[in-house]
Amino acid sequence: MDSEKYCDGPCPVGRGLARVGDAWSMMVLRDAGLGLTRFDQFQKSLGIAPNILTRRLTALTANGLLEKRRYSERPPRDEYVLTAAGRAFLPVLHAFGAWGGGTFGGGPVSRLVDAATGRVVEPVVVDRVTGRPVAEMELRVEVPV
Amino acid sequence: MDSEKYCDGPCPVGRGLARVGDAWSMMVLRDAGLGLTRFDQFQKSLGIAPNILTRRLTALTANGLLEKRRYSERPPRDEYVLTAAGRAFLPVLHAFGAWGGGTFGGGPVSRLVDAATGRVVEPVVVDRVTGRPVAEMELRVEVPV
Repeated sequence: MDSEKYCDGPCPVGRGLARVGDAWSMMVLRDAGLGLTRFDQFQKSLGIAPNILTRRLTALTANGLLEKRRYSERPPRDEYVLTAAGRAFLPVLHAFGAWGGGTFGGGPVSRLVDAATGRVVEPVVVDRVTGRPVAEMELRVEVPV
Repeated sequence: MDSEKYCDGPCPVGRGLARVGDAWSMMVLRDAGLGLTRFDQFQKSLGIAPNILTRRLTALTANGLLEKRRYSERPPRDEYVLTAAGRAFLPVLHAFGAWGGGTFGGGPVSRLVDAATGRVVEPVVVDRVTGRPVAEMELRVEVPV
């Protein structure tokens, strides 16, 4: 994808995809949401080649979704933690997961649970004002002129 | 991404990303949600190379998100329409767009509007049972044993 073209285009989906529009980037953010912070943790969790992981971490940091923090001076070691923008992406991943599990759901699937009550959480996308599921609404996109 | 590994894995995010984990696939679904169905419509909208578009349409069809329909016999021409699984992905894209526009939002951005009332829609991801935004909840992931 021509990220430069979409980075500042009118479509907010395009803007987002220009930054995290590949599976590895989203899987790294998923793992960061699960509390992983270190290079070898991501590598072990994802089974990703080190050079690809380095590139994704660098891009996610440059795009303001992860923040690099030094946790050891000798030897110098950095970890990666979600920024506010990165944390704000987690609900999108939850909605994505609800769709992925529901649509391609044969066999055992991880479940999202309310840590306070232990109840299974079922993410659904609604209109903030009315609370109606957007899937039930007829929507139109207004492009800026 | 090693799609085969994630296709049937326990993580529902991984399952989804194994099918639509690249920016072009999601942009094609976005356009299909806007009513585009034909090869040249997608190509014009996205500025995508024909061979890449062909590959994405073939994969999205194989994964059950688009359905191929013949609209002309002479010459033979097919169009692509969203399946139920493909339509179910649109709310995820709306949540993605709300995040993308909110996070990377300088300059004019397209808006989602309720076709019935003309009101701007603000997609937010909530727990279906309680209606609470998942961003405000403390969540835990239960992995199947």
